[in-house]
Amino acid sequence: MTHFPIDLISSWDRFHRGHFINSLSGFKPVSLIATVGPDGVSNLGVFSNIVHLGADPALVGFVNRPREAAPHTIRNIEAGRYYTINHIHPDFLDRAHQTSAKYPDGVSEFAAVGLGEEWKAGFPVPFVEGSPVQYALELAEVMPIPLNGTYFVIGRILHVFVDERIVGSDGLIDLYEAGSMVSLGLDAYGTVMPHARFAYAKPDRPAARV
Amino acid sequence: MTHFPIDLISSWDRFHRGHFINSLSGFKPVSLIATVGPDGVSNLGVFSNIVHLGADPALVGFVNRPREAAPHTIRNIEAGRYYTINHIHPDFLDRAHQTSAKYPDGVSEFAAVGLGEEWKAGFPVPFVEGSPVQYALELAEVMPIPLNGTYFVIGRILHVFVDERIVGSDGLIDLYEAGSMVSLGLDAYGTVMPHARFAYAKPDRPAARV
Repeated sequence: MTHFPIDLISSWDRFHRGHFINSLSGFKPVSLIATVGPDGVSNLGVFSNIVHLGADPALVGFVNRPREAAPHTIRNIEAGRYYTINHIHPDFLDRAHQTSAKYPDGVSEFAAVGLGEEWKAGFPVPFVEGSPVQYALELAEVMPIPLNGTYFVIGRILHVFVDERIVGSDGLIDLYEAGSMVSLGLDAYGTVMPHARFAYAKPDRPAARV
Repeated sequence: MTHFPIDLISSWDRFHRGHFINSLSGFKPVSLIATVGPDGVSNLGVFSNIVHLGADPALVGFVNRPREAAPHTIRNIEAGRYYTINHIHPDFLDRAHQTSAKYPDGVSEFAAVGLGEEWKAGFPVPFVEGSPVQYALELAEVMPIPLNGTYFVIGRILHVFVDERIVGSDGLIDLYEAGSMVSLGLDAYGTVMPHARFAYAKPDRPAARV
């Protein structure tokens, strides 16, 4: 094992440091977040720093970079309150990654990259056509993180769309079967293979695979 | 696609709902977080809601469940300020999952599950022996989330330990080669296969795999 102290890491150029630190936290649950702006233009961005916060109430958070770097998604959510999160499947990965390009104001990434808008459930924001796991949220809270100018955006889940055949009898969604991807660092993507599942752990017995 | 509105999801029993909502946000970067308590007893817990917050300063956040459900890690970090995060490799997955059992106060999960403490860099908290990617943090901020009693715990990275042979010339850590695992829901684990890597996206050209 090689020791990389922070003084060394900080001395690297910003791209080298960015790749290293971005990969350090592990593989990430990459998804597309869709919003609609006050001008009615839809917006789509790729986000990987998404976290489950709790099941009851059902809350999911994501990190929005500083406004000067990533202005549209947070502005549209603050103004419109509603957004959708859509898992990425290998079939449209290239188009999903392309949403990370900085398109000018007034351009919808849906149209620019060639992804279809799927409107449903009377929800005021589109879902991503072809995404195997789609969910709709209402803004619950935006928590500014003064340490580095980012925002932790928390939403309440309102609707979920997923093929019921990949929802297990215990409620677990089979994301292997869905083909949901993960990301690594800023620009790498992987697929996931099942490895093991365990019974609820108790102190008086060893781990048991099921 | 099947529509699951939140009223239906809320009507399910808590285990079914927990599996469903926990799997909805995607595959998660599962890791072991080590701390040392005020009593000198080391503590180890499995955490999957970990997010990269920024590269400069290098910040990583994780979600700690409410204190009554998960009291030790957050208490130890608040008291001692320092902790380590350690990726999970298939070689010790069973022992890693077993740390989720509720051991009584005064018992170290390292000893209880049979994982070795690795002390290094003069750091006051051990790393997990055999973990392929290990990093040390100092507490930067605990943000309470009143919506559901959880906490977003933000740390500043101080040290990273990883085999330099799996750090690319551009800084990206090869987590496929490291064998870093992901988790799904509460109790499933997967391994990741590389799929694609892209050039930096620009609006005037299509996505380019590299």
